Amino acid sequence: MRILGIDPGLALVGYGVIERQGHRLIPVRYGCLRTDAQHSDGARLRHIYEATAALLADVRPDVVALEKLFWGRNVTTALSVGQARGVILLAVEQAGLPVYEYTPMQVKQAVVGYGKAVKGQVQEMVRVLLGLREVPKPDDAADALGVAIAHAHAESWARRVGRAER
Amino acid sequence: MRILGIDPGLALVGYGVIERQGHRLIPVRYGCLRTDAQHSDGARLRHIYEATAALLADVRPDVVALEKLFWGRNVTTALSVGQARGVILLAVEQAGLPVYEYTPMQVKQAVVGYGKAVKGQVQEMVRVLLGLREVPKPDDAADALGVAIAHAHAESWARRVGRAER
Repeated sequence: MRILGIDPGLALVGYGVIERQGHRLIPVRYGCLRTDAQHSDGARLRHIYEATAALLADVRPDVVALEKLFWGRNVTTALSVGQARGVILLAVEQAGLPVYEYTPMQVKQAVVGYGKAVKGQVQEMVRVLLGLREVPKPDDAADALGVAIAHAHAESWARRVGRAER
Repeated sequence: MRILGIDPGLALVGYGVIERQGHRLIPVRYGCLRTDAQHSDGARLRHIYEATAALLADVRPDVVALEKLFWGRNVTTALSVGQARGVILLAVEQAGLPVYEYTPMQVKQAVVGYGKAVKGQVQEMVRVLLGLREVPKPDDAADALGVAIAHAHAESWARRVGRAER
């Protein structure tokens, strides 16, 4: 099961691809797409759309996990992040892939086991869980890997429940 | 000069096309795109994207005018409207068209001449300015026509200033 985690934004879109093999989580690739603040919103959204479509074709994930906006942020941020999310969701839909959303609290719960963990703790646990030498940079890539891990845990939990019910 | 006005939303996207010929504003076409609340966000965004691209190809506007979100609304609404705006801006960008944004207050100012006009006044003035028998329905179509009119006025004002300077 290959999972692509995405942390959407207009300036920076973090992404992280992991492979779940049994209980092991293997990092495949991570980084971020950047857009030029000098360009129009339309041009930046087109870049995000095309880069996401190219990433999906390249990485061929089985599923996409997206960070859900933290509701505490303001309306201007929400509109801007929403526009980026819109074109990302469009690319994922056109690729015919299922998409799941996780709040920052769900990601913290899954990665650290504590929903109110601070950013540094989450990044360090992402490093440990994926057996990386260093914390992934930039933060957006680490966040995207965190979302992918959250989905891997939710998936394995869902399967365990499924088995217990039989 | 053919102007396409758009009032974006996830459930309903209002659109209104007008033609400016000298001082006259001629209504060409208006209505709205609807998405099915039973479908996933991805499927609804794909529908908005494809329908917008088809509308642009069909109507062939010279310019697109978009309603800017009113900042008083909440974060959940902003995220949802943002996602719809994202795929609309993408379609406009891919069509290579310029896009302008107008706040509800700018639209009221342009259509009624008073930035705090109520919705009913704006709709009635849209009807009068375009020589329509009835107020356009649904409200989203009337709003989109209002945005298109706001752009027509801003354009003619900009040209007048340009001439006066020579």
